[in-house]
Amino acid sequence: MSKKIQVTVWNEYRDDQMTGETAAIYPQGLHNAIADFLNRDPDIEAGTSVITDSEQGLSETILDKTDVLVWWGHRYHGEIEDAYVGRVIDRVRRGMGIIFLHSAHESKPFKGLLGTSGHLSWREAGERVRIWQTDPSHPIAAGVPLNFVIEHEEMYSEPFGVPSPESTIFISWYKGGNVFRSGLTFRRDLGKIFYFQPGHETHPNYFNENVQKVITNAVKWAKPELRVESLACPNDKEPLENL
Amino acid sequence: MSKKIQVTVWNEYRDDQMTGETAAIYPQGLHNAIADFLNRDPDIEAGTSVITDSEQGLSETILDKTDVLVWWGHRYHGEIEDAYVGRVIDRVRRGMGIIFLHSAHESKPFKGLLGTSGHLSWREAGERVRIWQTDPSHPIAAGVPLNFVIEHEEMYSEPFGVPSPESTIFISWYKGGNVFRSGLTFRRDLGKIFYFQPGHETHPNYFNENVQKVITNAVKWAKPELRVESLACPNDKEPLENL
Amino acid sequence: MSKKIQVTVWNEYRDDQMTGETAAIYPQGLHNAIADFLNRDPDIEAGTSVITDSEQGLSETILDKTDVLVWWGHRYHGEIEDAYVGRVIDRVRRGMGIIFLHSAHESKPFKGLLGTSGHLSWREAGERVRIWQTDPSHPIAAGVPLNFVIEHEEMYSEPFGVPSPESTIFISWYKGGNVFRSGLTFRRDLGKIFYFQPGHETHPNYFNENVQKVITNAVKWAKPELRVESLACPNDKEPLENL
Amino acid sequence: MSKKIQVTVWNEYRDDQMTGETAAIYPQGLHNAIADFLNRDPDIEAGTSVITDSEQGLSETILDKTDVLVWWGHRYHGEIEDAYVGRVIDRVRRGMGIIFLHSAHESKPFKGLLGTSGHLSWREAGERVRIWQTDPSHPIAAGVPLNFVIEHEEMYSEPFGVPSPESTIFISWYKGGNVFRSGLTFRRDLGKIFYFQPGHETHPNYFNENVQKVITNAVKWAKPELRVESLACPNDKEPLENL
Repeated sequence: MSKKIQVTVWNEYRDDQMTGETAAIYPQGLHNAIADFLNRDPDIEAGTSVITDSEQGLSETILDKTDVLVWWGHRYHGEIEDAYVGRVIDRVRRGMGIIFLHSAHESKPFKGLLGTSGHLSWREAGERVRIWQTDPSHPIAAGVPLNFVIEHEEMYSEPFGVPSPESTIFISWYKGGNVFRSGLTFRRDLGKIFYFQPGHETHPNYFNENVQKVITNAVKWAKPELRVESLACPNDKEPLENL
Repeated sequence: MSKKIQVTVWNEYRDDQMTGETAAIYPQGLHNAIADFLNRDPDIEAGTSVITDSEQGLSETILDKTDVLVWWGHRYHGEIEDAYVGRVIDRVRRGMGIIFLHSAHESKPFKGLLGTSGHLSWREAGERVRIWQTDPSHPIAAGVPLNFVIEHEEMYSEPFGVPSPESTIFISWYKGGNVFRSGLTFRRDLGKIFYFQPGHETHPNYFNENVQKVITNAVKWAKPELRVESLACPNDKEPLENL
Repeated sequence: MSKKIQVTVWNEYRDDQMTGETAAIYPQGLHNAIADFLNRDPDIEAGTSVITDSEQGLSETILDKTDVLVWWGHRYHGEIEDAYVGRVIDRVRRGMGIIFLHSAHESKPFKGLLGTSGHLSWREAGERVRIWQTDPSHPIAAGVPLNFVIEHEEMYSEPFGVPSPESTIFISWYKGGNVFRSGLTFRRDLGKIFYFQPGHETHPNYFNENVQKVITNAVKWAKPELRVESLACPNDKEPLENL
Repeated sequence: MSKKIQVTVWNEYRDDQMTGETAAIYPQGLHNAIADFLNRDPDIEAGTSVITDSEQGLSETILDKTDVLVWWGHRYHGEIEDAYVGRVIDRVRRGMGIIFLHSAHESKPFKGLLGTSGHLSWREAGERVRIWQTDPSHPIAAGVPLNFVIEHEEMYSEPFGVPSPESTIFISWYKGGNVFRSGLTFRRDLGKIFYFQPGHETHPNYFNENVQKVITNAVKWAKPELRVESLACPNDKEPLENL
């Protein structure tokens, strides 16, 4: 029996990713590029699913075997059916880890789990970004330089519509004058959540070794401590102590 | 033009509240009892709405004039239409304060804003509860004793399925052996949120002066600092600094 | 009897501030420049004290009348006597607000109240900084633009050795490639604490209207909810309930 | 070379522990009872030191080899020399984990690292306490029942003078009517901190299997991610980007 962390990398993956600029960078899709580097870690076993799979790639069968779900989506957030969104949210509450990448800040599971808008401002200028550590004590930052550069990335800017995070692990500096809390953790019931900004589809940033290190660390951090079949709301009729 | 804080106390208020034990305690309904004590404060003007009003008491007209919404619901959470739930959540994100009372921990707006299950365990034994301050620096605790007793209340117990709160203001001791974080604050985008446990419909606890003091303080704390028409996600095409 | 918020602006104020560049900008000292703009607010009454005053400007008489202490120090942190440091820390724990400006991140009261190193990296290049709001719901950000520029300021960079703040209100972008959490709140027992980065002594940044707005807002936010004579650790011999 | 987590259990251990009630329960001292159960875990190697050792048991040699320090003290907090207190605080900031047990809430390192008073109220009545989980997602709670009873323990009560914790893992119910946040985590620079309430010297509670499980889990959680020789405050003269 495998004791590896079971990861599913979910991607919306439609025509716009299968041709042109994105396909030139990620010929097998962003999801396979991400799964590939995760699979180089001996403790991780990563598969993939996409929006065009049955049940939009979010079947019970897939979620049953997933310890940590990695989510990449940009253009089709609105098409994910509410039943599947509810399924993902429920799984996270019952212990599954989830990592939201890049524009997943606008996805339904992100907003449903965090309770906020996820809003920010943005600029597609492929500008230079410098990502700074702000919590070197956190395992997600292990082995990552105190700051590192990505030459070209979409700009995301504060104010970022998220609740107070459990930990602020990275803050990004953009050449055009903006800052952004680009690596944040949250917990919801039994599930651990990490958001990480890099990964616009027209830049090869999932091949960046520091980006890979962060996401690999995050998978290990988000692994469930405990998973339960249901979060009951039990009627404890019998008092524990005398009334 | 009034500068008072405009409050709407929303209650599901159906037959089960209009007869029997609850009606004997709250002949005008829980919502009017709550609005009554809020209206004794010179800085507050409180009205009410109920589930049987048009648009389930959650019309744009009502929300337009509401600075802080107080929510009481127990049996009919599932009947609130998703469109109205979304409206409330959106208003909170854009700045409206909200106070969830008692069993509102299972309401759709509570779970939608917090992102967790809201689950807990419970016992209807009308047992003694002692509510302790845990953050005397917080304005919601102002003028409230370090601990106070309610003779009869429904028991709610940890573990409580909520995210890490911004502040833990009260923790309750129940005679039957349970504890519960009974006064918690959260923020979601521009909106402030307070949860407070007391208020089972078969006990006269909204006439308790300390309960009244807490809820009155909470209304003042939850008053918007800022309200906006929309939480935009703007495309900032022009960089602020040279690229 | 005055109901204004009583502020004392404390400054180390020695020869190095009384001559040359700093004196040219702040002929009456940084402390008087800060007190001046605070005194323009009708709800605030600000005085000053300096390290060369009796008891290093931190006498019981001064602290007795101070609701919020504003602290500016850079070169003489080590000279503050431990007895006076302890006095300040004790006052904050018992309810006095405190605002640490600029290089006060290395002062003894800052490190004693936060428990961390206060460390950061820095560069005196008088470079351009852009200060971004990250929590528009917070009263300290009220009336401040979503971002604003200071043309010349000392650079402070992450990682910043502070505990997880209660609220992260501002993050700064520096032209030289650094980011810094430049506006942070904390609570310690009954006392509210705000740290704000701007204010190197060789730049006229306490004349910047946005800097003034932030510090004025912070004074109002840090005002005590409650002050006590002592934080007792009482022996409650008699149980509240039957053993 | 051992890869086990190196723990030092420090105890004040003076005459009052060597005779009478405490010695009857803990004939080798509380420190050895704690080290004994920690040493039953294959990943942990625990030693001890006491206040009567050279340098009060806090020599550089001892701290050099310690990954996680466990601190038990009650009557002699005031006797620990400031130089050694500073040493412990500095080590924690540079990565060493620390676990404060029971009355260590009044110790100098606790107050120095947290920045608050550590105050609470208390009662020595050997009363029944029921310890509740409030964060089942946390590794420190792994394998511990949702609640468990200790028949006799000193009572500690809210309000507890600590900053907002990173995680609230346990809350205790006392038969006499009090509640207490009895298991809390904090971070200070690179160091992880856990406070746990049980362990009055006149009750055999370090033999309780759930207490042992919690402390063992906490040692594993508090293990350093990263340790550094110094927390520098470097002058980064050269900008990373063009000024």
